[in-house]
Amino acid sequence: MFEVEVKELYRHQEKYLNQEVKVSGWIRTVRSSKSFGFIELNDGTFFKNLQIVFDEKIDNFKEIEKLPISSSITVEGKLVETPGAKQPFEVHADRIVVEGYSHSDYPLQKKKHSFEYLRTIAHLRPRSNTFSAVFRVRSVAAYAIHKFFQERGFVYVHTPIITGSDCEGAGQMFRVTTLDLNNLPRKEDGSIDFSEDFFGKETNLTVSGQLEAEVYALAFKKVYTFGPTFRAENSNTPRHASEFWMIEPEIAFADLNDYMDLAEDMVKYIISYVLENCPEEMEFFNNFIDNTLFERLNNVVNSEFARITYTEAIELLKKSGENFQFPVEWGCDLQTEHERYITEKIFKKPVFVTNYPKDIKAFYMRLNDDGKTVAAADLLVPGVGEIIGGSQREERYDVLLNRIRELGMKEEDYWWYLELRKYGGTKHAGYGLGFERMIMYLTGMSNIRDVIPFPRTPRNAEF
Amino acid sequence: MFEVEVKELYRHQEKYLNQEVKVSGWIRTVRSSKSFGFIELNDGTFFKNLQIVFDEKIDNFKEIEKLPISSSITVEGKLVETPGAKQPFEVHADRIVVEGYSHSDYPLQKKKHSFEYLRTIAHLRPRSNTFSAVFRVRSVAAYAIHKFFQERGFVYVHTPIITGSDCEGAGQMFRVTTLDLNNLPRKEDGSIDFSEDFFGKETNLTVSGQLEAEVYALAFKKVYTFGPTFRAENSNTPRHASEFWMIEPEIAFADLNDYMDLAEDMVKYIISYVLENCPEEMEFFNNFIDNTLFERLNNVVNSEFARITYTEAIELLKKSGENFQFPVEWGCDLQTEHERYITEKIFKKPVFVTNYPKDIKAFYMRLNDDGKTVAAADLLVPGVGEIIGGSQREERYDVLLNRIRELGMKEEDYWWYLELRKYGGTKHAGYGLGFERMIMYLTGMSNIRDVIPFPRTPRNAEF
Repeated sequence: MFEVEVKELYRHQEKYLNQEVKVSGWIRTVRSSKSFGFIELNDGTFFKNLQIVFDEKIDNFKEIEKLPISSSITVEGKLVETPGAKQPFEVHADRIVVEGYSHSDYPLQKKKHSFEYLRTIAHLRPRSNTFSAVFRVRSVAAYAIHKFFQERGFVYVHTPIITGSDCEGAGQMFRVTTLDLNNLPRKEDGSIDFSEDFFGKETNLTVSGQLEAEVYALAFKKVYTFGPTFRAENSNTPRHASEFWMIEPEIAFADLNDYMDLAEDMVKYIISYVLENCPEEMEFFNNFIDNTLFERLNNVVNSEFARITYTEAIELLKKSGENFQFPVEWGCDLQTEHERYITEKIFKKPVFVTNYPKDIKAFYMRLNDDGKTVAAADLLVPGVGEIIGGSQREERYDVLLNRIRELGMKEEDYWWYLELRKYGGTKHAGYGLGFERMIMYLTGMSNIRDVIPFPRTPRNAEF
Repeated sequence: MFEVEVKELYRHQEKYLNQEVKVSGWIRTVRSSKSFGFIELNDGTFFKNLQIVFDEKIDNFKEIEKLPISSSITVEGKLVETPGAKQPFEVHADRIVVEGYSHSDYPLQKKKHSFEYLRTIAHLRPRSNTFSAVFRVRSVAAYAIHKFFQERGFVYVHTPIITGSDCEGAGQMFRVTTLDLNNLPRKEDGSIDFSEDFFGKETNLTVSGQLEAEVYALAFKKVYTFGPTFRAENSNTPRHASEFWMIEPEIAFADLNDYMDLAEDMVKYIISYVLENCPEEMEFFNNFIDNTLFERLNNVVNSEFARITYTEAIELLKKSGENFQFPVEWGCDLQTEHERYITEKIFKKPVFVTNYPKDIKAFYMRLNDDGKTVAAADLLVPGVGEIIGGSQREERYDVLLNRIRELGMKEEDYWWYLELRKYGGTKHAGYGLGFERMIMYLTGMSNIRDVIPFPRTPRNAEF
């Protein structure tokens, strides 16, 4: 007898056909007539179910046919081919042992539930088809990212989650503290004495590991981060979460073109890897969630991404004659409507837009020779708009210092970041990919809450 | 001309010998006599340096020979074999371009620095031999863990970092808040109104993803987490950090023996993978950090781990005649001195100790039939003591509920955890591996601050 998982049966059925097998899993459906019945069994290792046929030969027939959905069982029996049927094979049960009973009030009954409702039972939703597919794709995509970078010699860096300063100035942050809020320590002037806090000063949750990743790029040449980041913005949209995972590669002796080459390779690799390793899940998404999915993803994999400057993009948008909600003028930030128009209508494939006005970009981006744009590039993809943002970093000590002062930032907070430029700095570049955005793009799921196991959003931190 | 990285030169030198190559990197040392000089160049992709020979043929000879350590350069020249020399080959430079100047006050001069000092320059220490080795091993070990689990069909789950409750009761937690501490919202009775906080209630940083991992194990059968966890304990020891990464696998239809089999395989896999993929780094650690390292690691890989019960362990310790600082009695928690005695003196190899008294273990561990022990197991390894802790989980609804009540925990906080037992629960087990402890074990580094890029400890959140 083979003790075996369902995925293994589907992938190597020839090894098990007409053999005795033993499989454990959860009942998705059970139906029976007088003397025999069928169970759709899912063991979590595979998207598809295994069909179990049982009859009065088993001594607990009456018990089995009445098992509530999601009861867990172990089945022993012979694996038999079923030519012409929907499924390739089934198990003829000789013995079924109940591992754990479910209840008739099990909330995930066969009828279709709304995604909104399923969020309230986040502890059970991974047992449904959609979420079983989403979270397997999420896992496989995460591995694809590690594999892509590791096979290319990148060093994975764990940048800190708790930080002493808002180094990117990227918006509102979560405070981390162990102070007793009912009894805050005070200095003589009445202000809160943060020297009494756990770290001896004010600390927050990180919004980005980039600045620390630069430290490591200037030692290891090629590095990447992959970790959680946080935004305390009160944005209740389908695309914003307060806690999400980011991938931030950083490469030394590299410029903007090197970053774009790397990002293009990475995006194509992730998509190809997931299509190859999750065929059943991806087919499900294409059939039931977004029927343009395969077309869209294949288009990305098979295109050479376009590269245009921001200035060219503005001209193209102006010439388009399109009536945009936000008017287009050189100097304005591109809105999603503009980004989508460029990638969907003009190029019909992914587009890097480069060299943005410095005033709409971050302080660390490399100033171009024109004095008014920076070596930034965003990747726009059909169906979404921006999916990656990145830049060549300012490696010139004086230029960076000027920029920090110009923006009124605290120079002393950046002493170590500046020193990177003092001690053998070199041109380097990097980018950030929001992992959940990538999963949404891969699956066609339209709400970020549905691609995070236990999402955190304003007023919601359940489970 | 080949534009190439140093690792590639070492791994496939036959392809590049007597060819023109172009290499960029940072100067580790430079020495010169009147008419020629040597540079040890490190490009971050490899532990070892590349020797560059340059002479007055290059037009900036005078500039190059005076370059401060850590200046970055690009070298073009021929790769030439150097039979009998320390290094296998060197580059005879035709051209050297300075990418970035360093300064003569570069803090990482050739003389040896203490690890304590190097912590104060965490932005530069990855450029030293020791830390370049530590952080490459850290990266490769992280990948080994993903590879191990993914190749076995495990689903990687991102459990939440911000949590609504102290579900493990594992000690002090960091509060996460966006409330204005200078102007805290109050309820009528004067207490703080946490319904005004970002998530509408009190939230903390997670101490463990286990309970949420159980949710996913009961959907996917085999899952693992790998993410940051936090402890707000005021422990200033070489083995405690406030922010560290944990791996928490969880398997369904599995008992304590299945967990031990999996953990044993995993530990052996990680060690073997790192030995195979970081040979230069591991040799460095064995030579300069801990010269018992290879012996210790090989012993682990080649041993069948022992398995004894806690009760047997207590008997063995009592019979040993050893004079322990903490006396041994059934019911006591094992101290590091006991753990190390068992694994180093009695068994001389890794040992799982199983079935601990329930009163010294967590609420979720499965109660054994004797009513006084639980199905827990800790893995003890020579040189460290405990490196993994795990258990079979209590899958029986009533037993779990009783235990929660017995310990005075809030039943309503665990509604979803209890429901896992109500809707098709099954036997399952899992464990936690502290990633930094594993890195310390792999490298021989004795302070956790030296295996984390930017460590967070009490009163320290620099960079």
